[in-house]
Amino acid sequence: MLVVSMGELLVEIMRERVDEPLGVAGTFVGPFPSGAPAIFIDTVARLGIPCGFIGSVGKDDFGRLIVKRLKEDGVDTTHIQLLPDCTTGVAFVAYSGDGTRKFIYHISRAASGKISDGQFDSSYLSKVKYLHIMGSSLSVNEAWRKACYKAAEIVKESGGKISFDPNLRPELLDIGKIREISEPILSSCEIVLPSGEEARMLTGIEDADRASQRLLEYGPSIVALKRGREGSWIYTKKDKLKAPSFSVEEIDPTGAGDCFDAGFIVGILQGWPLEKVARFANAVGALAVTKKGPMEGAPSLREVEEMLRKKGGEK
Amino acid sequence: MLVVSMGELLVEIMRERVDEPLGVAGTFVGPFPSGAPAIFIDTVARLGIPCGFIGSVGKDDFGRLIVKRLKEDGVDTTHIQLLPDCTTGVAFVAYSGDGTRKFIYHISRAASGKISDGQFDSSYLSKVKYLHIMGSSLSVNEAWRKACYKAAEIVKESGGKISFDPNLRPELLDIGKIREISEPILSSCEIVLPSGEEARMLTGIEDADRASQRLLEYGPSIVALKRGREGSWIYTKKDKLKAPSFSVEEIDPTGAGDCFDAGFIVGILQGWPLEKVARFANAVGALAVTKKGPMEGAPSLREVEEMLRKKGGEK
Repeated sequence: MLVVSMGELLVEIMRERVDEPLGVAGTFVGPFPSGAPAIFIDTVARLGIPCGFIGSVGKDDFGRLIVKRLKEDGVDTTHIQLLPDCTTGVAFVAYSGDGTRKFIYHISRAASGKISDGQFDSSYLSKVKYLHIMGSSLSVNEAWRKACYKAAEIVKESGGKISFDPNLRPELLDIGKIREISEPILSSCEIVLPSGEEARMLTGIEDADRASQRLLEYGPSIVALKRGREGSWIYTKKDKLKAPSFSVEEIDPTGAGDCFDAGFIVGILQGWPLEKVARFANAVGALAVTKKGPMEGAPSLREVEEMLRKKGGEK
Repeated sequence: MLVVSMGELLVEIMRERVDEPLGVAGTFVGPFPSGAPAIFIDTVARLGIPCGFIGSVGKDDFGRLIVKRLKEDGVDTTHIQLLPDCTTGVAFVAYSGDGTRKFIYHISRAASGKISDGQFDSSYLSKVKYLHIMGSSLSVNEAWRKACYKAAEIVKESGGKISFDPNLRPELLDIGKIREISEPILSSCEIVLPSGEEARMLTGIEDADRASQRLLEYGPSIVALKRGREGSWIYTKKDKLKAPSFSVEEIDPTGAGDCFDAGFIVGILQGWPLEKVARFANAVGALAVTKKGPMEGAPSLREVEEMLRKKGGEK
């Protein structure tokens, strides 16, 4: 495995229409395979890189759907456990017309929240080039937090690197706690991929540009600031570069950041210059929003190459 | 409170169409307030009898929906706890063309599975005429099983009576276990309300009629055998009577048995002769299947009286 990720596996059940609240009878669509680290790893696989996942599902139709999907896309699923006594995690999502989302989760006490010590080891992780950690996984529960820290240690000791998407939600955890649980990964990672809000949260600096610069002092060699429709800005100790976005018709923004992460790590593994890496990642993120469902828009390598050929990164 | 019930509170998320399996993306409708004991108590309230419920929901839109619904229909909800750290229970349901159903549950580890010792006491239960226990609640987890046993003891000691619907599922628990956990309630209840399959399961007697006769020897004074479209048969030590059903257009059979239970207990509390009680309960159960959603068809007293007036119990 060149890339491994780990964390919560779940299905998403989403409102069919915007502005339909969760607490009244209405229509949902789903189940869609989801979980930020799962979206990440599925995209890595679709982009053609050997990769694997560590996580847990229930022995039910939702769990089988997730595992089947990851497997079919090329993810090694040998380290996903099927738990007969637990139910696969679920997230209900409602969208508002103003772009905000509301969730109801069955995650931390569901199969998604289970991780056992015996589930991963140095034999699985020792040849990994990048272990990708999601902030969301650090906040599932104590067991997952410890598992992520431990896996990161194993990978580092074996010469691999860590990438970190600090997708932690201030509405779920206070900022002090977010900084505390992020610190062990942030200080040991090679690449951090925050949104502007996340860069601000982690540093306490209002301006996202200055916050991203500051993040370099926390440990990582590369900061990839995700700016949504405005592309991405990439920071290193020596350099700062702005990669333009691609204009696409947005159907469902869920998962775009996770797909960007995947494109970025895949680009890094190709040894490309950072500018090419960022354009590639922007294209992956842009394609991700063109289909309904968190993982449905994860593009294949061919789709990304086609977009890069057609649009070349202009906007 | 004349009647109290207790147990799992949940919302049901159901497939919009038959023969749509749970493990592929499709359409769901919901959330609908549900849980067998909740359907029971909501119907008791709609039939005009003072009643209350003991249970737990999460502090989320699903939980608020359930509590609001019970409250609006007249159930005392002071003994339902809203748990900030848990998520309200959910059942996903898919229907097959042949009438079978398939479920995925988030119940035992969700808010639905929580019951604390301090949540009920003799001051709440001492004036109760009937405490209704559902087999499903005995199988949620150990905490609920103990709580049901304890509540039943309190009610009996205060001179109240127990009614019992042994709606336990052989696909979830083996028959030995079903008999074992049912025994303390079955032996102390006044009324048991089984389906034919449940009567067979509890007694080991193939013929539902003979099985129901036998159940009288286990403790209860009245056995109300639910025969679906064919009405109900009522057994006492002295008598057996057959109450005809009502023909209705079936939209959704979920909850019909729970509504029948409610009609039966309400009839008993009125002091009616058993024949009238059974016809009333049959009318309540029949009306329950005419609307989509587990609790949506629970009829008001006026609707039941109208059906009894129009159709008089003929079929």
